[in-house]
Amino acid sequence: MASSLSTKPFSSTDALSAFASLNPDLRSFSPGYLRLSLRPRLPKRLQIRAAGSIYGNHFRVSTYGESHGGGVGCIIDGCPPHLPLSEADMQLDLDRRRPGQSRITTPRKETDTCKIFSGVSEGLTTGTPIHVFVPNTDQRGHDYTEMAVAYRPSHADATYDMKYGVRSVQGGGRSSARETIGRVASGAVAKKILKDFSGTEILAYVSQVYNIVLPEDLIDHDTLTLDQIESNIVRCPDPEYAEKMISAIDAVRVRGDSVGGVVTCIVRNCPRGLGSPVFDKLEAELAKAAMSLPATKGFQFGSGFAGTFLTGSEHNDEFYIDEHGNTRTRTNRSGGIQGGISNGEIINMRIAFKPTSTIGVSLISSLSVFITISFTHHTDTSHPDMFTDIFHSAYSC
Amino acid sequence: MASSLSTKPFSSTDALSAFASLNPDLRSFSPGYLRLSLRPRLPKRLQIRAAGSIYGNHFRVSTYGESHGGGVGCIIDGCPPHLPLSEADMQLDLDRRRPGQSRITTPRKETDTCKIFSGVSEGLTTGTPIHVFVPNTDQRGHDYTEMAVAYRPSHADATYDMKYGVRSVQGGGRSSARETIGRVASGAVAKKILKDFSGTEILAYVSQVYNIVLPEDLIDHDTLTLDQIESNIVRCPDPEYAEKMISAIDAVRVRGDSVGGVVTCIVRNCPRGLGSPVFDKLEAELAKAAMSLPATKGFQFGSGFAGTFLTGSEHNDEFYIDEHGNTRTRTNRSGGIQGGISNGEIINMRIAFKPTSTIGVSLISSLSVFITISFTHHTDTSHPDMFTDIFHSAYSC
Amino acid sequence: MASSLSTKPFSSTDALSAFASLNPDLRSFSPGYLRLSLRPRLPKRLQIRAAGSIYGNHFRVSTYGESHGGGVGCIIDGCPPHLPLSEADMQLDLDRRRPGQSRITTPRKETDTCKIFSGVSEGLTTGTPIHVFVPNTDQRGHDYTEMAVAYRPSHADATYDMKYGVRSVQGGGRSSARETIGRVASGAVAKKILKDFSGTEILAYVSQVYNIVLPEDLIDHDTLTLDQIESNIVRCPDPEYAEKMISAIDAVRVRGDSVGGVVTCIVRNCPRGLGSPVFDKLEAELAKAAMSLPATKGFQFGSGFAGTFLTGSEHNDEFYIDEHGNTRTRTNRSGGIQGGISNGEIINMRIAFKPTSTIGVSLISSLSVFITISFTHHTDTSHPDMFTDIFHSAYSC
Amino acid sequence: MASSLSTKPFSSTDALSAFASLNPDLRSFSPGYLRLSLRPRLPKRLQIRAAGSIYGNHFRVSTYGESHGGGVGCIIDGCPPHLPLSEADMQLDLDRRRPGQSRITTPRKETDTCKIFSGVSEGLTTGTPIHVFVPNTDQRGHDYTEMAVAYRPSHADATYDMKYGVRSVQGGGRSSARETIGRVASGAVAKKILKDFSGTEILAYVSQVYNIVLPEDLIDHDTLTLDQIESNIVRCPDPEYAEKMISAIDAVRVRGDSVGGVVTCIVRNCPRGLGSPVFDKLEAELAKAAMSLPATKGFQFGSGFAGTFLTGSEHNDEFYIDEHGNTRTRTNRSGGIQGGISNGEIINMRIAFKPTSTIGVSLISSLSVFITISFTHHTDTSHPDMFTDIFHSAYSC
Repeated sequence: MASSLSTKPFSSTDALSAFASLNPDLRSFSPGYLRLSLRPRLPKRLQIRAAGSIYGNHFRVSTYGESHGGGVGCIIDGCPPHLPLSEADMQLDLDRRRPGQSRITTPRKETDTCKIFSGVSEGLTTGTPIHVFVPNTDQRGHDYTEMAVAYRPSHADATYDMKYGVRSVQGGGRSSARETIGRVASGAVAKKILKDFSGTEILAYVSQVYNIVLPEDLIDHDTLTLDQIESNIVRCPDPEYAEKMISAIDAVRVRGDSVGGVVTCIVRNCPRGLGSPVFDKLEAELAKAAMSLPATKGFQFGSGFAGTFLTGSEHNDEFYIDEHGNTRTRTNRSGGIQGGISNGEIINMRIAFKPTSTIGVSLISSLSVFITISFTHHTDTSHPDMFTDIFHSAYSC
Repeated sequence: MASSLSTKPFSSTDALSAFASLNPDLRSFSPGYLRLSLRPRLPKRLQIRAAGSIYGNHFRVSTYGESHGGGVGCIIDGCPPHLPLSEADMQLDLDRRRPGQSRITTPRKETDTCKIFSGVSEGLTTGTPIHVFVPNTDQRGHDYTEMAVAYRPSHADATYDMKYGVRSVQGGGRSSARETIGRVASGAVAKKILKDFSGTEILAYVSQVYNIVLPEDLIDHDTLTLDQIESNIVRCPDPEYAEKMISAIDAVRVRGDSVGGVVTCIVRNCPRGLGSPVFDKLEAELAKAAMSLPATKGFQFGSGFAGTFLTGSEHNDEFYIDEHGNTRTRTNRSGGIQGGISNGEIINMRIAFKPTSTIGVSLISSLSVFITISFTHHTDTSHPDMFTDIFHSAYSC
Repeated sequence: MASSLSTKPFSSTDALSAFASLNPDLRSFSPGYLRLSLRPRLPKRLQIRAAGSIYGNHFRVSTYGESHGGGVGCIIDGCPPHLPLSEADMQLDLDRRRPGQSRITTPRKETDTCKIFSGVSEGLTTGTPIHVFVPNTDQRGHDYTEMAVAYRPSHADATYDMKYGVRSVQGGGRSSARETIGRVASGAVAKKILKDFSGTEILAYVSQVYNIVLPEDLIDHDTLTLDQIESNIVRCPDPEYAEKMISAIDAVRVRGDSVGGVVTCIVRNCPRGLGSPVFDKLEAELAKAAMSLPATKGFQFGSGFAGTFLTGSEHNDEFYIDEHGNTRTRTNRSGGIQGGISNGEIINMRIAFKPTSTIGVSLISSLSVFITISFTHHTDTSHPDMFTDIFHSAYSC
Repeated sequence: MASSLSTKPFSSTDALSAFASLNPDLRSFSPGYLRLSLRPRLPKRLQIRAAGSIYGNHFRVSTYGESHGGGVGCIIDGCPPHLPLSEADMQLDLDRRRPGQSRITTPRKETDTCKIFSGVSEGLTTGTPIHVFVPNTDQRGHDYTEMAVAYRPSHADATYDMKYGVRSVQGGGRSSARETIGRVASGAVAKKILKDFSGTEILAYVSQVYNIVLPEDLIDHDTLTLDQIESNIVRCPDPEYAEKMISAIDAVRVRGDSVGGVVTCIVRNCPRGLGSPVFDKLEAELAKAAMSLPATKGFQFGSGFAGTFLTGSEHNDEFYIDEHGNTRTRTNRSGGIQGGISNGEIINMRIAFKPTSTIGVSLISSLSVFITISFTHHTDTSHPDMFTDIFHSAYSC
């Protein structure tokens, strides 16, 4: 009977009526597991439904794990040998990613302690695959009870069930924000490689929360530091706007609602020559990386959408020769990329994150507010793994 | 001596002064060819600088060719057999892509007549690679003379030279808009496959030119037709706004300037279940495809950047059961994709194209205005090739 | 001082003299770890030295782990949902792979107990990545002491050090036979998929040991069973030849030597149509898969090398129509593959394994004999993972 | 009616009876085209049947074209810029590949004149895709008439029809030996890169024809030259054995039969460090490359199958330090590769080619003898393109 509740096919007319008949004893039915739809076994036709859990060409990351199982993790294949690496390198970013660190985020108490299982010996990478594992400690199956019944709006529940015939309940699916742990762990390694190789830094900060928009010229990308970003719980490097943003979040939080926003991400000291001219343009790779993060709705770089309101002569990003004899551009409206190839200027991107749909009203009253700002936990560390790969493929010459 | 003019290294202090000393006889030096930088041969270190000219996994397209050579073309590997296909299928879209069809676009007179060299027999595809070739007819080497000297701002000239040590002059490089011919030809094949397989249609139209913004609710995506889009030279399906856009273009055109804009692209009758939950989310693949087009600066889908000004409860895309018993969403703020997987609603994307930088002032006075609207020539046909691949990989089950 | 012993560069003149001066106290220096060569850090030039630990396109396997660390394992990405799967399915093949089960193999006492950490819920796969982990229990660091000093002949020690600057001591590198555990675990999953989908079976048996060559016609590939293969410790389905092989192994084993041999692998009930006509021929994929196993020196299928002694008219594999109206071939000299595509007949392959070079004489007297026959532990289970991928890509239509 | 003859489904009982009723007027039916099977259109289920016509990761080759169309060719993506390149570089190898140059090969009179259409400017590569085209000049449709009716034994006809539903008649399919033209053209480019970068040479010669087996020690791989190989029509560098081989071929040729043989291929001055330890072992990549050539039945390197008759102590490939202080191996039974990684010794491979099945007896009396020795036309040039890719990926560090 429990299964009849949890296994409605995607196009059923009674998905919602099933919800209406919700049995309060539901939570007693195998609470710790995924529910599998009972749709009839598919005919004997081999099905490709690749989970797409591998990223990169040279620096390749495979991630695995769900919230409901023993833990999550990743394998990094292609990390160069002789890189100093320890759990501490990753832990820093994993702690930043972790929700529940302040009143404005989900109050989960995860510890996310990582352990390296292979690929590192005596503190140095050996060139073999690096397996990083983070055990789950806060499974809280009982909070997700209702999700077993109805598809949560704006979530992956419905589409995942339709594609795989599997309900993604209890935060358990791969669409869980916990999936980004593997990105952050591998991103921490990528950041070390980039820093070591070319002094390249990737930084991200919150530049908009709801209707509070940080004016672009308040932040100097040449001097921005991680400390400035980390100086407040909303991760906006301008203290005044940080306060405004926190107030905006608090205002919606108290009524059980959530907000979205924009993250600005910059790449500083990017080597010239990354990317290639046709299908694998650098901006195309960056867009794919950014848009693979949960809850993203848009990507722009350089002049972006605002640039469409300029004429060509206004938009022009003139060249000049700086005091060191280097060819530079004056306005960086090109956003550090021209013709698909980095030109050495700062790459600046803006990524839109929707207000998280797991709200405290309507269907899922038992779920705590999952505040959108959680994206700052992972964006600045999840980009590098992609970036390193572009790095490898385009600049190792 | 000509070569000394054309071979400035990227960080030279005299790139601009070289331009000042431009010898009027320059054009007599091998006018029909690429100039190669005379930088010393690189040391014996094998260099990976992949041109990235192959796209897709199952439906794979390799493109080649420059404006200065004999022609451009592509090979399509992985097209299913038994598909009716002729040059006429591609020619329709190639003609749409071709600039110079109206006063608002570059007045080049290219004919872009394609020829199929392999993979089709008696009007049907055979499952073997399809080679499509489009000869160059309008090389006009003399117009590009000055480009041989100075890097054009906001172009790929400088970055291409830096990466490959090769000047991309005379419209000759792979960054030329002519590169998209291979995308359009293969996209025409992809469109046929999609239409045939699931009735899927991809349509694109101009929704913003400079400061003329088409209100979203003027266009009904359920009934929009290609004829409506093609009914005017600016390819905006609303006649009134089309007139405003044309006027805006004319206003800047007469003073030798250019404008940018936004293209809206929709996917109608998209099967459910495309895309996968982690790195290969459908929106990530679409973003990469769109951002690999020349001159793009931004990508958004569904509620996009505007959605960040909503709260979670406002943004929520509620499910309901329609009259056919299908699970649908009410607002489509999800833009047809949830958790990285298509849900069957219309996928709607908006792509920002910068004002083309090849303007009639400053360095390159001899070049005609290249009006931004040319992007409409290829966007709706270049998406499908990407889409088909997602199709293959995700839905062939 | 220990490091000076263990860090000889590849072209050092004193690799062997270092061995001569071997300090008996060597084992006291960090016995449980990889030794890293002390060669100077490479210049700031990003290096691609991908470890190549990911296999497949749709059914993708990432393996990790060394003998010296906490364990080995793999992630399987792309396994279809709803497949019944438990540790027991893999344990069967892991036990078969495990050395030390009889007197003719390495007497290590590994237990190789696997655990599934993700991707399976309530006994069924969920379509998400499956992480399988096998802890190391028998590290025996002390046995490998001498390897820290000199390169073992015919091993990967020297080349691995040269390429990565890392010594692969103590059985610790990825070249360890323990690396195949990840193949076997994923192969067990692949075998279930194949069996379920099309009744396809992959069986392997020993057809030659040293100079004992099993006559081909003694084995009926149409009726061969796993039980027949498993009926003796040498895994030759013919009892008489099995005895001869065991005697041959015993004869060399008592004098501390080892032997090689040939494994025959067949694919029964292979669907027609796998493979494609040009670069990705089925035999090419199978050859790559087989030759990626440790210690392999050769691959042949169908008539193989022997077929070169026939004339074309003798070799011809004539078609006929069987009683069910199916087009069959009479001789199967084609080995189940024609023009790169499976034709439905039994695919038969023969793979040569060299005598393992870790012998009890010369440099490494403390190492136990590692008998070649160990290859039978993994070949029949490591093929399927490759095969499934071909399956997916070629036959899912 | 013609179509009823040419469109027998794969499992038809009357494929052969159709042949019996062969109408002498058949040739009048669309003689210049592929025949398409008339099997009913497949249901609306998108089908992946990738032709697999793209090879490589960094140096990527896409080939296209059939014998029956306008020509064949390839696109090379990822060739470094500044490489001197002209048609003459490729023509040399294309001429070597071309059949019909001596009495022992197919007497076709193809000229195979190549033309470069893109990617080269003023004699140097520009880093953009190189398109090479070779027009067909000898289509001879009338010779292939009978093939339209019955499947040729040991050919790709039956499997291709089964997989794609398309008959591969008139030498027209991708299984035609003419497909290798694209390999040879791209291989010629690869050979230049390898020679230029590291002095690496790849040479191949015939070491067995039918029962004439060239003793291995007659050829000194350190000094072997292309001139020695080209000194006779059978391409065996030993003149005495060349004569024996030619006699053996003549003996079977006069009775309308054919023979197979073995090609030995060596890689000299191979850099150390190519290949990686697990799935992408160098021998695995080489095996795939070799086995993707038409008519191959086996691959071995180093001690190969013969090595299985040695004990471990006999087989051992001991290290020593040569006069230049380099670590070398004494016997090269490892065949230049240890643990999947090249060690700097000569890589030696042996590839078995079956006797070509297109014989002058039985079904296809009108076809001329296609003598097996034609493989020498392409093997030594088709390997390099694969090798260059390994090169790029493994050694660009």
